[in-house]
Amino acid sequence: MCRWVAYRGETTPLERYVTEPAHSLVAQSLSAKESVGATNGDGFGLGWYGERAEPGLYRDVRPAWSDENLKHLCRHIRSPLFFAHVRAATGTPTTRPNCHPFVHDNWMFMHNGQVGDWSLIRRRVEALIPDAFYKSRGGTTDSEAVFLAILGAGANTDPVAATMRTLVALTELVSVSGTTEPLRFTAALSDGRDLYAFRFAHGGSANTLYYRETGPNVVVVSEPLDMEREFWKPVPPGHLIAARAGKPVTLAPFPEVPRLAAE
Amino acid sequence: MCRWVAYRGETTPLERYVTEPAHSLVAQSLSAKESVGATNGDGFGLGWYGERAEPGLYRDVRPAWSDENLKHLCRHIRSPLFFAHVRAATGTPTTRPNCHPFVHDNWMFMHNGQVGDWSLIRRRVEALIPDAFYKSRGGTTDSEAVFLAILGAGANTDPVAATMRTLVALTELVSVSGTTEPLRFTAALSDGRDLYAFRFAHGGSANTLYYRETGPNVVVVSEPLDMEREFWKPVPPGHLIAARAGKPVTLAPFPEVPRLAAE
Amino acid sequence: MCRWVAYRGETTPLERYVTEPAHSLVAQSLSAKESVGATNGDGFGLGWYGERAEPGLYRDVRPAWSDENLKHLCRHIRSPLFFAHVRAATGTPTTRPNCHPFVHDNWMFMHNGQVGDWSLIRRRVEALIPDAFYKSRGGTTDSEAVFLAILGAGANTDPVAATMRTLVALTELVSVSGTTEPLRFTAALSDGRDLYAFRFAHGGSANTLYYRETGPNVVVVSEPLDMEREFWKPVPPGHLIAARAGKPVTLAPFPEVPRLAAE
Amino acid sequence: MCRWVAYRGETTPLERYVTEPAHSLVAQSLSAKESVGATNGDGFGLGWYGERAEPGLYRDVRPAWSDENLKHLCRHIRSPLFFAHVRAATGTPTTRPNCHPFVHDNWMFMHNGQVGDWSLIRRRVEALIPDAFYKSRGGTTDSEAVFLAILGAGANTDPVAATMRTLVALTELVSVSGTTEPLRFTAALSDGRDLYAFRFAHGGSANTLYYRETGPNVVVVSEPLDMEREFWKPVPPGHLIAARAGKPVTLAPFPEVPRLAAE
Repeated sequence: MCRWVAYRGETTPLERYVTEPAHSLVAQSLSAKESVGATNGDGFGLGWYGERAEPGLYRDVRPAWSDENLKHLCRHIRSPLFFAHVRAATGTPTTRPNCHPFVHDNWMFMHNGQVGDWSLIRRRVEALIPDAFYKSRGGTTDSEAVFLAILGAGANTDPVAATMRTLVALTELVSVSGTTEPLRFTAALSDGRDLYAFRFAHGGSANTLYYRETGPNVVVVSEPLDMEREFWKPVPPGHLIAARAGKPVTLAPFPEVPRLAAE
Repeated sequence: MCRWVAYRGETTPLERYVTEPAHSLVAQSLSAKESVGATNGDGFGLGWYGERAEPGLYRDVRPAWSDENLKHLCRHIRSPLFFAHVRAATGTPTTRPNCHPFVHDNWMFMHNGQVGDWSLIRRRVEALIPDAFYKSRGGTTDSEAVFLAILGAGANTDPVAATMRTLVALTELVSVSGTTEPLRFTAALSDGRDLYAFRFAHGGSANTLYYRETGPNVVVVSEPLDMEREFWKPVPPGHLIAARAGKPVTLAPFPEVPRLAAE
Repeated sequence: MCRWVAYRGETTPLERYVTEPAHSLVAQSLSAKESVGATNGDGFGLGWYGERAEPGLYRDVRPAWSDENLKHLCRHIRSPLFFAHVRAATGTPTTRPNCHPFVHDNWMFMHNGQVGDWSLIRRRVEALIPDAFYKSRGGTTDSEAVFLAILGAGANTDPVAATMRTLVALTELVSVSGTTEPLRFTAALSDGRDLYAFRFAHGGSANTLYYRETGPNVVVVSEPLDMEREFWKPVPPGHLIAARAGKPVTLAPFPEVPRLAAE
Repeated sequence: MCRWVAYRGETTPLERYVTEPAHSLVAQSLSAKESVGATNGDGFGLGWYGERAEPGLYRDVRPAWSDENLKHLCRHIRSPLFFAHVRAATGTPTTRPNCHPFVHDNWMFMHNGQVGDWSLIRRRVEALIPDAFYKSRGGTTDSEAVFLAILGAGANTDPVAATMRTLVALTELVSVSGTTEPLRFTAALSDGRDLYAFRFAHGGSANTLYYRETGPNVVVVSEPLDMEREFWKPVPPGHLIAARAGKPVTLAPFPEVPRLAAE
């Protein structure tokens, strides 16, 4: 069970969301409130868009709460669109390539959840990844495999449809694998221009997701960053947030997809 | 607030105390019960005596709960006298030389506690360390400085007296420094033959310490490793455990030392 | 291009081969002599058999030359059969699961070489691994995939035949992949009882391999550990060393395998 | 023997000097040309000034050549004044707080060299550091101690004079310590506005230092970053480079300081 923050809006120092708030993401690395395990100490990551098409990336295996570099970077890097993630591993090793976010060209992705019993279906999920994207698989997590599968399903053309198609396939694979472990998918995706966040589960409850709008800025989080709970709106299961360049933020149910069983 | 285990007795695999019990030290790294903070994820260490005069040592900056090496070593290393420690840092960086246990020649030491406001008295505590021992100061913690001060105070001749003398000096330094932060010293010391464990505090409550004897074996711990609480005897503040080669384990109050204020 | 040492014989401290010799493996991590790149600083690993069926394992991402833990472990661990490896990465990330040796149950393996252009054939090599073994794939290297393929090819029944079958398959995969990159396979394999070491290449020169017998002990190395070059016998390409329990060490050409092209 | 780069000029991505050139600093981490040891794999660091008074900082214990984060950061961070350093340790452990550059408030410092036999004079050099600065001593290197001594000698008022005074004191301490080890000081210092670089030695040859001016930009380096050697001017021993805001870059001999023995 991980915790994450995604931001899109006016250019801002990352510290404003990652390290400064009362219940900042770094505070959540030590004591999350709305997850089964309170500790998210199995590595962390930052990804941010700036002047390049592809995002910058800083990931490490240490807990976020003790990383001096993270504090420095959050204070010195400014971005209009960034992700931050603290990890609680669900079985795969604590290595940098297993830390979120994951990047490929201009795309970035992070995830909180699990894909059924990963040891049962890893190969079949990896088989969803086209060769062109398999080359960039640097780790062994379910999350990275799902990201590359989404890219392979046509994210460049329609990121929401590609995600839906991938969730249909994953739901199917988990179902037939015979596990009682759920598929949980609370995730963020961006191409450097638009931000999408999804909340979904099959076979169990969906991991929490909230968002907050302040003028032109939107923050999407695993759990609220401060005590002003009334400003944080929950995203219902089977719903997605879209924050597209030059458009108002929308919260909507997943589009109809054949065979996609809502939670 | 750290957690630790010290063992002296029949040669045994380290896993028996470090990783296997229900509430093993590694379990305590993620969720300690009798400390203010439940997480002890700022590095860890193992030290063990074997065929050499000096102990073996394995320390790393990652949390103990995710370290595969630790699991392997605890399973494959056997020893009649060993220390294991999981760290919750109190201000100094998470580096290997700041992880416990500390070793010097045949001596080994680990600590749970704090030495007043370290930033106020660091220099004066370091001044207690004779030149010959200052050379082996590899980190910046209060704990390592106290260890080297104890060695400098004559541990080779009389380890208990050397520790008492050092506690007198530390109590004095903390008192005159003007801090309200306590001196807390729950520590283990060994020369490879005998094991000593101390519980003491000045200006605050003493960190917990328990021990359990099973035949010729004694385990001293920050908190019980299992649910059989009746077998674990608390060590009162101002008391020390001595497990000397060929002698019965003793629990005794600190010997009289001029000016050593008991808690 | 990595460097490694494998030992089978009387129980000995690991330091005798890993850290002490004039041109020890740790010295080779900083300045190897018989490899293209002199630096092998992309992680390292130790694996050793003791009282358990499965080997102990210590791997880390730092250079071997600066790792204090490695020095301690080599001094304090004794074993009759162990592997040590310093890594020079050939494209995959520097993570612990990508460091050698690799273990599975009682089996252990390490490798110096490359499998053609890994990005071209990774999927096909991974497809050689049966499901039962794919679960234990913790990293992304060609070496680990080859190890699991060898286990899947029947190492438990006949380790040499399983290795030969796997080399046949790899040679085929590399050949049809259209690369000009060679297959290089200088590797060691053990089940905890017997030790095998192989030197082979297809499409290029084979990485060096030497061995030295001293009474009942045999050491197999990438390059000699000391200046007494006359005691180190080279293993020719297409040959293997077998040091089986209770039998004399043998050096022999690879057994005949259909379609296995010798170098 | 470390390698470093300091830059002052137009705002530029760090990659232009740290990772891109033919003989970039990262290339030098693996194969430096003008130093005794070619490998600088004992950690690295980046420090850069941006919109804050204090610099950003990224340091890690891994070799620079394999650090993916470093590549990302150098590509995404732009700065008008930055330091980068790859370390070859001279005895102190490979920890983050022992990596250069060192920062304190708005000051930043990095060093290539040694301070005689550090084990002989460490205490006396640390005694040069006023209490107010000793609190920020996070590691155990000679370099960090010298930096804090320079700050304590009045860098805020006159950085060059403070450095000179400190070199006088160090020369004296090394001389009377009875060592034959030299004092070598090839270092860079900045307050976020002006850049100073020094080349000095006592009792041995001075470590190399070069600089290159291109329009308003100046780069100061341990060794040239490319093959255009004619553009790189050597800094003679006992000389310093000053690149002050709004002023031309100057190369000058050290100012007269009582008892400062030139090399």
